[in-house]
Amino acid sequence: MTDLVQNLADVAGLAETLPRFDEAAAEAAKARQNTLTKPPGSLGRLEDLAAFMAGWRGTAQPRIDTAQALVFAGNHGICAQGVNPFPQEVTAQMVANFEAGGAAINQLCREAGAALSVVALDLDRPTADFTGGPAMSETECIEAMTRGAAAVDPEADVLILGEMGIGNSTVAAALAHGIFGGAAEDWVGRGTGSDAAGLRLKARVVAEGAARHADLSPAQKLAALGGREQAAICGAVLAARAARVPVILDGFICTAATAPLYGTDPALLAHCVIGHVSAEPGHRRLCEAMDKTPILSLDMALGEGSGAALALMIVKGALACHNGMATFAEAGVSGG
Amino acid sequence: MTDLVQNLADVAGLAETLPRFDEAAAEAAKARQNTLTKPPGSLGRLEDLAAFMAGWRGTAQPRIDTAQALVFAGNHGICAQGVNPFPQEVTAQMVANFEAGGAAINQLCREAGAALSVVALDLDRPTADFTGGPAMSETECIEAMTRGAAAVDPEADVLILGEMGIGNSTVAAALAHGIFGGAAEDWVGRGTGSDAAGLRLKARVVAEGAARHADLSPAQKLAALGGREQAAICGAVLAARAARVPVILDGFICTAATAPLYGTDPALLAHCVIGHVSAEPGHRRLCEAMDKTPILSLDMALGEGSGAALALMIVKGALACHNGMATFAEAGVSGG
Repeated sequence: MTDLVQNLADVAGLAETLPRFDEAAAEAAKARQNTLTKPPGSLGRLEDLAAFMAGWRGTAQPRIDTAQALVFAGNHGICAQGVNPFPQEVTAQMVANFEAGGAAINQLCREAGAALSVVALDLDRPTADFTGGPAMSETECIEAMTRGAAAVDPEADVLILGEMGIGNSTVAAALAHGIFGGAAEDWVGRGTGSDAAGLRLKARVVAEGAARHADLSPAQKLAALGGREQAAICGAVLAARAARVPVILDGFICTAATAPLYGTDPALLAHCVIGHVSAEPGHRRLCEAMDKTPILSLDMALGEGSGAALALMIVKGALACHNGMATFAEAGVSGG
Repeated sequence: MTDLVQNLADVAGLAETLPRFDEAAAEAAKARQNTLTKPPGSLGRLEDLAAFMAGWRGTAQPRIDTAQALVFAGNHGICAQGVNPFPQEVTAQMVANFEAGGAAINQLCREAGAALSVVALDLDRPTADFTGGPAMSETECIEAMTRGAAAVDPEADVLILGEMGIGNSTVAAALAHGIFGGAAEDWVGRGTGSDAAGLRLKARVVAEGAARHADLSPAQKLAALGGREQAAICGAVLAARAARVPVILDGFICTAATAPLYGTDPALLAHCVIGHVSAEPGHRRLCEAMDKTPILSLDMALGEGSGAALALMIVKGALACHNGMATFAEAGVSGG
């Protein structure tokens, strides 16, 4: 990461220096799709995903031999405001559960054929309460971005990202509100177990944080409102881009983590798709704001990368068709 | 099948004699979900699918060790009306492609871990043009249902169904219109390559067929308006039910094939979910009419069982979580 970003102001010019979508490879993939034994366009989103993978991998017939899954975990000073009914100890307990193989993401990664790593980021040192000042210093933010970037396997064919952190649905709402505006109420949801009073409290805290840091640049808002796992996700997204590894983002919290990159330059997220639209109400709005159509909609709101892992199955199905189907000529089928 | 249905009138009383959803097993599955290391309900549709599988398999922890995929193919006399730009020979060509492993469904079944069989139903003997009389006699219809039923592996843990047949999007629209009414235009779409004039022709033909056979019972409409692959799908659905094998239906044509069963008694489809909502416009309406929420929406319109095979991946993911996750007590996580 240090070779990509020395300070947050560097993020602004980054898209210029990073690899771009290979239009020729994507066009070649689309041309191949039109020779396969099916009516043109009939595989819908699967055809789009094949072209997307082709453009980022730089080859007309991309494959997924190695899929990496990264889950970043962090703790948040905003919990001091009472926004979450669960204690912050649960973050470390869930990290232990990931390491023991007992969480949803472990099962889904096994099923989808992804190699899972969990990166716990200073869980005993929560970020600061963003209503009282910045959650992280710029140095702390760059450190967390660097750890996220360092965790990326540049040899992987695709990367799926997820997160865990008690309180981080409030952090996500603050980032979304801070970057895209609107009303705080537009971005908050029940997260894990908030009731109506909890929702009102979350909205108040989110509005307060976004207002306090309103004058900062989008990248500076990552430090001011985000947590370490959000910064690590941004670092991983940028490192994946540098290695031409396409990214499947998970749900609301993971998408919101990348909002500061989008706010800086939407091109920084061109290699990312969103795996699943969360039941958390702000996510649909966020996907629209970031001009992304999620692959799945299964009424989930778990995080951990669970929606991204399920979406990976669909992307693999897309490439299985793209690479494995016979052409009209090969199969002797009329109409090609 | 012959032991289930001797004639189409028998379909009406069938639900009484067939296995029912095991509420106790489904409740036990839901109770287990609430002990797993995740906020209650946070796996959304995955939790519902686990309970659905539990109820039909009659066990709190159902597994998918064997998944069967069946694709039925048929040819249709309605093609004489010029409703399709492709010749009926394509049906046999695509069956050969399935058998050679070159079609989308081959790749998706391999990816999803389903054993695929293709059943070609008298392709050289298309059904009759339903605007001139019934497409099939009752005997022909029962024969095709019997072949569909005989193809079902009663030892499978889940069955996915698909179809292939030039002209069968017109047949599907006729069945949907015949069973659920509305306007013919509500149910027709472009299918494989129809233009605007083709669409108007399809709507006229569908309206004519549904009007001609309006006085028949829903089950008789399967013979009058359907084709052999539609009847085989109905037979397979009933045989699967008899063996407590849950079914994932594919898209528009596969769902419409089962509309005569729904029209006879909605309980006959209680063990079926719809894998994917087709880009074909009538499908969303049909899913609503049949009170089913499709698992996926990927803008596909291919048939073959492609959407069901992709949905199978999601169902497998659901059961991987259901069976593989640690409970709060096992993992030592607070909040359970």
